[in-house]
Amino acid sequence: MSRGFLITFEGIDGSGKTTQSTRLAEALTALGQTCVKTREPGGSTGAELIRKLLVEGDTERWSAQTEILLFTAARRDHLEKTIIPSLEQGHHVISDRFVDSTRVYQGVARASLRSMVDALHDLAIQTEADLTFVIDMDPERALSRGLARNCGEDRFEDFGLEFQKSLRAGFLELAGEYHKRCHVIDGMREIDLIAAEILRITQEVLNERR
Amino acid sequence: MSRGFLITFEGIDGSGKTTQSTRLAEALTALGQTCVKTREPGGSTGAELIRKLLVEGDTERWSAQTEILLFTAARRDHLEKTIIPSLEQGHHVISDRFVDSTRVYQGVARASLRSMVDALHDLAIQTEADLTFVIDMDPERALSRGLARNCGEDRFEDFGLEFQKSLRAGFLELAGEYHKRCHVIDGMREIDLIAAEILRITQEVLNERR
Repeated sequence: MSRGFLITFEGIDGSGKTTQSTRLAEALTALGQTCVKTREPGGSTGAELIRKLLVEGDTERWSAQTEILLFTAARRDHLEKTIIPSLEQGHHVISDRFVDSTRVYQGVARASLRSMVDALHDLAIQTEADLTFVIDMDPERALSRGLARNCGEDRFEDFGLEFQKSLRAGFLELAGEYHKRCHVIDGMREIDLIAAEILRITQEVLNERR
Repeated sequence: MSRGFLITFEGIDGSGKTTQSTRLAEALTALGQTCVKTREPGGSTGAELIRKLLVEGDTERWSAQTEILLFTAARRDHLEKTIIPSLEQGHHVISDRFVDSTRVYQGVARASLRSMVDALHDLAIQTEADLTFVIDMDPERALSRGLARNCGEDRFEDFGLEFQKSLRAGFLELAGEYHKRCHVIDGMREIDLIAAEILRITQEVLNERR
């Protein structure tokens, strides 16, 4: 049995990551490949408990450094309990966000924080996705289309439009940095068109590596 | 106003750390020096929430690596929200456990974990105590004296006597490694005698540094 692929979806809130990761899982399943759908922060029992600490309460509750430590702790649990066992059983793992989100969110705030994210990743995670889709979306358009929700956990509006614009630029820059595994997808088109492109790229990469 | 001192108490469960840290705080207060008493894991609002994740539930809930990340996240919050502001206001901070406990508990389990503790400490904490009291106690004696509780959070018996013996040896070794700041205190004597010795050493160190 061959090892599964870790496929991650990245981008700003409202870019369509969740919709597209579900579509890809459905399409691969229809082709007879088993998929485990997961998300970050969270994706395992322990990591979901840490997620609660991260997304509930005051946004100023944790310093950036404490937040990075908590994200890394959650990711380590997610990796050990969900991602690695699933890949070893031959399933593909499709995750809505992974380390690239932490790199971009913290890096946009301060360059020294990006270094801390990378150092912690090297120390405790040491895993990159096999394939990453960066869904590119204009934040104003995400807002006007009602794709950026502001209910419960979602903090799109809390952070403000300017911050979302910086994040968008950050994701595009990161896609250039990791150009081998990252594919930038224009998220401002029809959902079906986007899903078809993502499936095509995924099949190409799966065929290449096998 | 001069900066306060960070004074930590370390040792196995039931060694008398909590009693002695309270006695030292009382004695210093009686001498007109303000003290903030705190503990780890915990010691700030956020760190106490992380503590709950660490001490509640199944002991196998987290891997050693995830546990180290959570301890470091809690310590970062404790440092930012309690320790540093208190020291800057001129108070002494007296903490029941600090990084040495993480070093010893993880190091006893596996040498590679001790390296991870140290790497994370360098990355996210970068602070050592000014003065550390390692209270030395024979684990069997702690048990027979009823000092090692096994109620609620306390997991002395869960870990077993052999593990406590390894921890005792680990704390003594660590005291040798950091011999400038660490003072090993024989915890198997009268409480008053121990408290007097700890106060004497604290006053000597405070006088030397001022």
